Amino acid sequence: MKDQQDIPVASSHRQRPSRSGGRAGRITARAIDRQQKTGYAGVTGGTYQPLSEQDIHRIHATALDVLEKIGIGDPTPEILEYALPKGCLLSDDGRLRFPRALVEDVLARVPKKFDCYAPDPKHDHQLEGSRIYTGTSGESVSILDYETQQYRPSTLTDIYDAARLTDQLEHIHAFYQPFIATEYSQALYVHDINVAYAALSGTSKSISISTIHAEHVDALVGLFDLYVGCEGGFIKRPFCTIGGCPIISPLRFGKENTEVMVRCAELGIKYGNACAPQSGATSPAALAGTLVQCFAESLACLVVMHLIRSDAKLIFGMWPFISDLRTGGFSGGSGEAALVAAAAVQMGNYYDLVQSIPSGMTDSKTMDAQAGYEKALTTTAVALAGGNHLCAYPGTVGSLMGLSFEGMLIDNDMLGNILRLVRGIEVNDETLSFDVIQDTVFGTGHYLNHQQTLQLMQSEYLYPRLADRRASGEWEDSGSPDIYQAAREKVKQLLASHYPGYIKPDVDARIREKFPIKLDPLDKKPGNGRW
Amino acid sequence: MKDQQDIPVASSHRQRPSRSGGRAGRITARAIDRQQKTGYAGVTGGTYQPLSEQDIHRIHATALDVLEKIGIGDPTPEILEYALPKGCLLSDDGRLRFPRALVEDVLARVPKKFDCYAPDPKHDHQLEGSRIYTGTSGESVSILDYETQQYRPSTLTDIYDAARLTDQLEHIHAFYQPFIATEYSQALYVHDINVAYAALSGTSKSISISTIHAEHVDALVGLFDLYVGCEGGFIKRPFCTIGGCPIISPLRFGKENTEVMVRCAELGIKYGNACAPQSGATSPAALAGTLVQCFAESLACLVVMHLIRSDAKLIFGMWPFISDLRTGGFSGGSGEAALVAAAAVQMGNYYDLVQSIPSGMTDSKTMDAQAGYEKALTTTAVALAGGNHLCAYPGTVGSLMGLSFEGMLIDNDMLGNILRLVRGIEVNDETLSFDVIQDTVFGTGHYLNHQQTLQLMQSEYLYPRLADRRASGEWEDSGSPDIYQAAREKVKQLLASHYPGYIKPDVDARIREKFPIKLDPLDKKPGNGRW
Repeated sequence: MKDQQDIPVASSHRQRPSRSGGRAGRITARAIDRQQKTGYAGVTGGTYQPLSEQDIHRIHATALDVLEKIGIGDPTPEILEYALPKGCLLSDDGRLRFPRALVEDVLARVPKKFDCYAPDPKHDHQLEGSRIYTGTSGESVSILDYETQQYRPSTLTDIYDAARLTDQLEHIHAFYQPFIATEYSQALYVHDINVAYAALSGTSKSISISTIHAEHVDALVGLFDLYVGCEGGFIKRPFCTIGGCPIISPLRFGKENTEVMVRCAELGIKYGNACAPQSGATSPAALAGTLVQCFAESLACLVVMHLIRSDAKLIFGMWPFISDLRTGGFSGGSGEAALVAAAAVQMGNYYDLVQSIPSGMTDSKTMDAQAGYEKALTTTAVALAGGNHLCAYPGTVGSLMGLSFEGMLIDNDMLGNILRLVRGIEVNDETLSFDVIQDTVFGTGHYLNHQQTLQLMQSEYLYPRLADRRASGEWEDSGSPDIYQAAREKVKQLLASHYPGYIKPDVDARIREKFPIKLDPLDKKPGNGRW
Repeated sequence: MKDQQDIPVASSHRQRPSRSGGRAGRITARAIDRQQKTGYAGVTGGTYQPLSEQDIHRIHATALDVLEKIGIGDPTPEILEYALPKGCLLSDDGRLRFPRALVEDVLARVPKKFDCYAPDPKHDHQLEGSRIYTGTSGESVSILDYETQQYRPSTLTDIYDAARLTDQLEHIHAFYQPFIATEYSQALYVHDINVAYAALSGTSKSISISTIHAEHVDALVGLFDLYVGCEGGFIKRPFCTIGGCPIISPLRFGKENTEVMVRCAELGIKYGNACAPQSGATSPAALAGTLVQCFAESLACLVVMHLIRSDAKLIFGMWPFISDLRTGGFSGGSGEAALVAAAAVQMGNYYDLVQSIPSGMTDSKTMDAQAGYEKALTTTAVALAGGNHLCAYPGTVGSLMGLSFEGMLIDNDMLGNILRLVRGIEVNDETLSFDVIQDTVFGTGHYLNHQQTLQLMQSEYLYPRLADRRASGEWEDSGSPDIYQAAREKVKQLLASHYPGYIKPDVDARIREKFPIKLDPLDKKPGNGRW
């Protein structure tokens, strides 16, 4: 809970500027330094509100009707054991019904904020209100290879490389499993353990892993305990969230994912549900109807978690998806996708829930202008709406099927810009600048060398890393590269130089003794470069 | 004032769906047909509000301080003649000061809505509130040629071609001069007349022209009268707006542009000012200060126009621009650009002014992912804020220096998506879909073939023209095209087939008799294709 308490939000330049630089100058310098490292982690959204309050109430009321009158099918025996004594009902058709008073009660009682720990405490953050943190998202099954520009199945090494890139990208605040390690897709224990190992090897930011086996959750806890060096150590600072899809839309529990959710609740581990119905396919074509169903499905997860343990931490995951109804296929990057996700954020914020939300999906197969605009329009809408855990899919292309490392770097710039937008404009006597305007009009006639300009040039403005701002002649002289090409060179450089060595040799040895680690100890390579 | 009154906004599917299709089905079919033609012209923004009401009041109060205590330098003799008798003051330093009561009075009295006519009345629209119409914008001096992918100076033919493309792009609602015809940049009378001729030849949508010579305004009126076929005909339905930059920031009148503005006010022609200070260069580095100065500069234009003629129609143009303060250069596509423009929109909407706002600028030199995300993030922010005349710079690249025709087509898709987002979610008994959910859960378990899905598949969803939604394998089999390449083929096809012939031969002859028309009568080419 450190960085975001004193990130250089607007208030950091509220003090009067000192002509000499002096103390204020040093404060500004530190603020700039922090900003360069942390980006705008924790800025507050909520200035965009697509739904009226009445809309929210109607969606809420209908979702509660759905839970009470239609319920959720295929409840597992464990869920019945936990939920029936607390007031849920099993109807003759085998569906679990949720009385509305129970749901309302849970909504009022669940924790409204909680810590999101990271392996390195400097990346800890607090999830609350409409504060925003971004993360990679997953889980793609292929990579748009940066060396061949062709799709191929993703591997464990790709996960490690994605973690190493995330570690260096200041506008990506957490590492959620971006790939499946396809070579281990028939050996899920090896898979899940190695995904966690690769993540911890490559980044010290907060991580998230998906698994469909409840017993793997216990194994992961064991791995994490070895990483932190004491039994029970992980659970004191759980730096890994488990994610999954406990609901099969429309309105059924999925057995394996549900078991994982239940196990996380029992252990007190943060769990992120992604209820992802597709409009017109697995939820109504009417976007309002999709919101109703998606809200009901997520509420079912929230109630179940809460009935298991009243301090259970669910990252409330309404992930309403869009279908292209000409084909029935999933479509990630449209205006409808942006809209329904932003509305979901507003629902979550209305009830002050800690939530996750997807954005940055694109149907383009490559990092072209379509990818750029689809990612930006969805992420801008959702960030302005104020989703906490912004699962921004940096680099992900092809309707979630693949991921491009160049795209991760490009999207890092994009995310910086969008978070800068969300941060907003500070309005006070200083920034209103009457004196500065007067000085300039009756003085040099130009602001470039004004003291205010020098003081604000870093804190008020973000300078992108990759985006090309050169004149067209200079750009042509350098071979007219597009940003996809420019990013490729940077990917090569970053991956060649950044071996952070987060798992120390002695810890590594203990982990390898107990777990089937497949990743080479790559950390022994030289260098620890940073962008 | 036709299309937007019955565009297929949410209310068009408020009627209960008829099982048989029947009348409701026919209504839906017509709505779909209209939507395909008009896009979402006239959707209402305003759901994103970056400033608090207190922020607005403070910016307002400080801007009025600026106008009263600093004033605007270099007033022209005409302005003094109009403004001094009405209460403005000329101070000893030669600056025109605006008493705050006068400014408040003008703000209360100016027209809050007015018609934006088009050569073809079917493209007329009404500017008011936070309804949004998009347009091309300008004026670039070069084109990123679609045949060579290199920059070259733009020509009159490029303007004609841009008009012909605009004519076919449903999410671009007006044609504002996108290029300078550089071959006539030393012959401005020939230039301005021919720009107008090229625009009218290529599109029947509302047009806008820039000129820096007041007498050209009168000449253009003469040209437009010939076009409509009677003297005084244009002024009854002025389908052309004149645009320009009457203010040289900080806070001085520019002589030539000001004379044009004055002449437009005298004639009753709609005028669009673009007050475009660059933060940290020609306005304060603090974004709040840039808003103050930009608001003051635009208010000066508003007051002057109003004092000349109380029904003068100014499209209030706060165009706050961003500098990259490392170089002092203009930067168009950043989070700061999105933010300060969205805040400007909110200022304009607060006072219910008809306004223009820029978006869609990019510093990328080509239509790559950078162009995509910079255009989308700025346009999404500004559209959600609800700017009326959204000068969205479709196709414009290279920090406003050039324009790509492929980019126009790509941005047309992007604009459609963003306008769909702005349109929002309709929440009512029908769309909340309780019955549909119940039917499906206890029925087929799938929504794809549900009557609601079939009825909403067009009206609830936008299907982009160019965006690639195919599976990655299919995309690879077709040669892995990016959208820039795909758009190129479409540009060639559209330009080869669309010669709309809006200027009839007899009218053309009369125009050529009186004006030095340089554009070949290209309309005689065969074909009148539409996308």
